[in-house]
Amino acid sequence: MALDEHSIIERFFRPLAGKGAFDLRDDAGLLPVSHDLDLVVTTDMIAENVHFLPGDPPETIAQKALRVNLSDLAAKGAKPLAYVLSLGLRQDIDETWLAAFASSLHQDQERFGIGLLGGDTISVAAGPVISITAFGTVAKGKMVHRFGGQPGDALYVSGAIGAGTMGLAILTKDAGPWDKLGTALRDDLVARYRVPEPRIELTPALIAYASAAMDVSDGLVGDCDKLAAASGCTAEIAAERVPFPEGLPVAQHAKILAMLLTGGDDYEILAAVPARNESGFRNAAAAAAVPVTRIGVLAEGAGPTRVLLEGWALALDRRSYVHGRGGRAR
Amino acid sequence: MALDEHSIIERFFRPLAGKGAFDLRDDAGLLPVSHDLDLVVTTDMIAENVHFLPGDPPETIAQKALRVNLSDLAAKGAKPLAYVLSLGLRQDIDETWLAAFASSLHQDQERFGIGLLGGDTISVAAGPVISITAFGTVAKGKMVHRFGGQPGDALYVSGAIGAGTMGLAILTKDAGPWDKLGTALRDDLVARYRVPEPRIELTPALIAYASAAMDVSDGLVGDCDKLAAASGCTAEIAAERVPFPEGLPVAQHAKILAMLLTGGDDYEILAAVPARNESGFRNAAAAAAVPVTRIGVLAEGAGPTRVLLEGWALALDRRSYVHGRGGRAR
Repeated sequence: MALDEHSIIERFFRPLAGKGAFDLRDDAGLLPVSHDLDLVVTTDMIAENVHFLPGDPPETIAQKALRVNLSDLAAKGAKPLAYVLSLGLRQDIDETWLAAFASSLHQDQERFGIGLLGGDTISVAAGPVISITAFGTVAKGKMVHRFGGQPGDALYVSGAIGAGTMGLAILTKDAGPWDKLGTALRDDLVARYRVPEPRIELTPALIAYASAAMDVSDGLVGDCDKLAAASGCTAEIAAERVPFPEGLPVAQHAKILAMLLTGGDDYEILAAVPARNESGFRNAAAAAAVPVTRIGVLAEGAGPTRVLLEGWALALDRRSYVHGRGGRAR
Repeated sequence: MALDEHSIIERFFRPLAGKGAFDLRDDAGLLPVSHDLDLVVTTDMIAENVHFLPGDPPETIAQKALRVNLSDLAAKGAKPLAYVLSLGLRQDIDETWLAAFASSLHQDQERFGIGLLGGDTISVAAGPVISITAFGTVAKGKMVHRFGGQPGDALYVSGAIGAGTMGLAILTKDAGPWDKLGTALRDDLVARYRVPEPRIELTPALIAYASAAMDVSDGLVGDCDKLAAASGCTAEIAAERVPFPEGLPVAQHAKILAMLLTGGDDYEILAAVPARNESGFRNAAAAAAVPVTRIGVLAEGAGPTRVLLEGWALALDRRSYVHGRGGRAR
């Protein structure tokens, strides 16, 4: 759309933010419902041609719809509890599609220990459109926010960055360096685009050691901007330290590097960690078997993320703000 | 769609229902989050050509999206607390539309005492598609369910039945008795189609006196079927007792009568009230200034609703199950 997501939220919906919404500047809202627990609430809608492609299997669409929400819960330190599902379906949807969609959700419910709390099914002219609201619990006052980072805090990311956007390129773009990749790697990158791995296991480490965190869904550089802005800082990241999927020709292709740094669909965790907490954080992440990598620091003063490559400022064609999610798969 | 909403839920999503979901047989789910309060959670998605029409003002679309959820909370006896919003917008959506949409939500937030807790905005090929999940609180164990009605309980409805479906007919159908209605009445019926009035004020009466309740959204007869089925009973309603909007030629048109009894978009409350509670219920409703009318009873044994007109069984062309919401505005 002509208006991007960021400006729509900023201009029209921020004034509506109520208690626990953190001015819509966090990945989730909070309902302080009991004396010892807070309820963390997040919602994400996904649609064809934006978050998944025509012809994607119903199994992976279902898992993506659920997991993008679980990824937000993970970034907030919340333990998944339940979810509600709204499903907009075209008239021609068939039983095979629905059975596969539901069965895949059921598998993920078992894996992540959550249940379906309610739902709604309607028909839409262009679909499917899937909206999930997910609930998680966190000890009172322990939700991890986007804000809270301090100058000097280290920036860490989980896993590897860029697999999702590379998988999308393989599925949608005509020619590029991805054509030369082996079949197994290509399949793996496509699988990562279609089905994120929410980093639930990292939540204890985040709660204990992070000053701020969010999930990386709209591109690493743009999401660094958001975390830093919420914390009143500037992110500085060293591109050569960013963990990319093995086997990609990053060093030979400046365009690939830029693409990985600014593409979406990572669903990894970006966390700010105070210096005194770094060894604790790394140990807790290792204990949870989640790889984490130090990619930079938060610096004084609010500003756009500085991306350095071997100490040189990296010129990025786009400033990576992929706020308009509508732009992603187009 | 070829599959209606009822069978989709029954076959594919009921097996996914978790704790607090009541097998997806209620209007809302429940999260027992604290020692003294339960959190009631409901979700509804609305789309163009199904729940509203192309050209409907953004103000009324926003209010309908929110209020269909508040109507579910009211039927469960829950006090509205907060909501999250997922918004699928076409690329060509403009600022005027968004400003009106948001401003209208803001007005309703003030009126109903709730805040926006979070949201998501994406672009969709055909829109708008709006999904809202709303949260309400109820004293521990006091949520009013669809189940719980007993044989002999009286059936009450709030307000008047059929205004919404008549408003839709005025907007979409070519010729009919609605052509002869006065302009003020036609405008009023259209307004009721576009903007429901959730019966929040009735919640204390429901909690204190109702054995079961739900909101009437898919047609009175079909919704009587649902409440009775959940309670293992059969509903018997007397058509001549059903409160219709004033000024409609119901008595002269059997087709109008059938249309009002089975059309959707009422968003009134249907409640089962044990005989010993009837005067208490009526007094509490009067104190809340919500008109309620006794339209029938629950009888022994599960079965489809019996609709009588002056004691004679009324033949309804369709059994009113408008489960497939997709069918409504088409």
